[in-house]
Amino acid sequence: MTIHMDLGLDSYDIIVERGVLEKAKEHLNLDRRVLIVTDSGVPDSYAKALESQCKECVVFTVKAGETSKSLEMFGQVLQTLLEHGFSRKDCVVAVGGGVVGDLSGFAASAYMRGIDFYNIPTTLLSQIDSSIGGKTAINLCGVKNVAGAFYQPKKVLIDPELLKTLPERQMANGLAEAIKMALTSDKELFELFEKENIESHLDEIIIRSLNIKKSVVEQDEKETGLRRILNFGHTVGHGIESSEEMTGLFHGECVALGMLPMCKEDVRERVINVLKKCNLYRELEYDWNKIAEAAFHDKKTEGDVVTIVLVNEVGSYEMKKVTCQEVIELAKSVLKG
Amino acid sequence: MTIHMDLGLDSYDIIVERGVLEKAKEHLNLDRRVLIVTDSGVPDSYAKALESQCKECVVFTVKAGETSKSLEMFGQVLQTLLEHGFSRKDCVVAVGGGVVGDLSGFAASAYMRGIDFYNIPTTLLSQIDSSIGGKTAINLCGVKNVAGAFYQPKKVLIDPELLKTLPERQMANGLAEAIKMALTSDKELFELFEKENIESHLDEIIIRSLNIKKSVVEQDEKETGLRRILNFGHTVGHGIESSEEMTGLFHGECVALGMLPMCKEDVRERVINVLKKCNLYRELEYDWNKIAEAAFHDKKTEGDVVTIVLVNEVGSYEMKKVTCQEVIELAKSVLKG
Repeated sequence: MTIHMDLGLDSYDIIVERGVLEKAKEHLNLDRRVLIVTDSGVPDSYAKALESQCKECVVFTVKAGETSKSLEMFGQVLQTLLEHGFSRKDCVVAVGGGVVGDLSGFAASAYMRGIDFYNIPTTLLSQIDSSIGGKTAINLCGVKNVAGAFYQPKKVLIDPELLKTLPERQMANGLAEAIKMALTSDKELFELFEKENIESHLDEIIIRSLNIKKSVVEQDEKETGLRRILNFGHTVGHGIESSEEMTGLFHGECVALGMLPMCKEDVRERVINVLKKCNLYRELEYDWNKIAEAAFHDKKTEGDVVTIVLVNEVGSYEMKKVTCQEVIELAKSVLKG
Repeated sequence: MTIHMDLGLDSYDIIVERGVLEKAKEHLNLDRRVLIVTDSGVPDSYAKALESQCKECVVFTVKAGETSKSLEMFGQVLQTLLEHGFSRKDCVVAVGGGVVGDLSGFAASAYMRGIDFYNIPTTLLSQIDSSIGGKTAINLCGVKNVAGAFYQPKKVLIDPELLKTLPERQMANGLAEAIKMALTSDKELFELFEKENIESHLDEIIIRSLNIKKSVVEQDEKETGLRRILNFGHTVGHGIESSEEMTGLFHGECVALGMLPMCKEDVRERVINVLKKCNLYRELEYDWNKIAEAAFHDKKTEGDVVTIVLVNEVGSYEMKKVTCQEVIELAKSVLKG
């Protein structure tokens, strides 16, 4: 199916279809220079499947993991484009997860002040979340997403078949974001998580999540207001993720933890059950000062006050301005098992 | 006077007024964290005049010259913003020439995916040209403006008083761009250059040049068509500027040379007289292979064909697609004295 993102001049289509990678050229204009950016954790065969459909193609493989979202790698992608004589009319295609999409999207936005960018996300997390919405970024000095651009792809191809090779923990990582979206915006999706077999409902989970994100992004492309609901669970989640000693945790795992303090008690009980079903952590013991420090380097901070998103009832949300200290106290009281 | 740039959501005002730097806070919102980016060639007193109007201010000084438009300096500006806890609601102010404006504008566009950017250009070249239009960039591997963003400032303050300290050669450097704009778009401005004392007509030259640029940028913000007329003289000009052994020449000096092959013979004679009056070079002996190589790394290239702008009659222009080789032959025939 096709989901149309309606963003004026920046509009684009998301194609969700099993096997779409194999026929990418029906959807993408590959009749020009193509830079495929992928990472060492993605099966080679994915980039190759795309490469075989291109006339003139360069494959750039970064090391899997968050450390590749660096200024240095950003420079290397730009240099690769330059060395291979890419013009303003050529394009970049991301074949990988959020790291690859964020890095190569930012490079595409900057190269000659913007060349076409396509995204073929290969993880569940990037299929339902980071591949759409146009947020690209790199990290700096250990702080996530310090520099980047709002830059919309020209098209996104989502092939759920690609998830067959995805490790179980990466799957859970993506499910966490789907649960997040269900909690603020889609009661039925949350009930699906509670009642149904998740694997056999994967396409539905992807499509419902995309539709939630579509609706939010269309109303608030540049993240000035409503889009904050997508940050549900992220204030504490980013703090956990950014704090040095927590580098072993995945983004979704951190967000899952970060959601719990933001839910009303009865909702929280239901969330805990769903997280259990998805093999996600439900509690955390840690040095909260370090998490607090990392959390509030976060860009959503304005002075000492942050806007948090609370879920009092499944499928709805409340935004509230609180101090950083209050967020940490809340997180500590819930997560310190 | 105020020139309003009408670019929809990205609209902004350019204030042209002698002494406006001293009362910048009447025009800019300085009641927040402010990063002033300046360079070692700009009188200290300029950044200080602005700093004294801020509550919370950091001054970042880069080395004067094109080498500061690097990925490394881009990273350092971002790191400075991060280390001083700048949020999305704070701002960056450029106090300097095109290098400072391009570098800090790109950093402002990228930091947290975009914070407010003000520009206070201190050279004639940046006052009439690079400070408006929203093109920001850095260089890479010796190639100019490889990476950047279209990012409009929130306001531009143009204080012609600041030009009093500008070296004569820098003045000529700016006049070259004004002559360029006159040639394609303003016959009267060109006649002013031919007949009047330039120094005593400086404010008029600035304002007329800004109005030409305003009109072009408003019609073509993202440089898809019409904006190419601003590139008159730049295809060859960039080639001269980018070729390694020519690093001694200023941008405007290169553009002045680059315009000559693009003018019809009788127009060229008039241009040569005006360039002489402004102390700009009129001829060049050089290794044309190197210039050709540098010229066609240029982003306006598409395959082997480039669009050049020709002036057959003062105040009008013609766009023409020619091969790279034809451009070089034309340049050689005119410039090799």
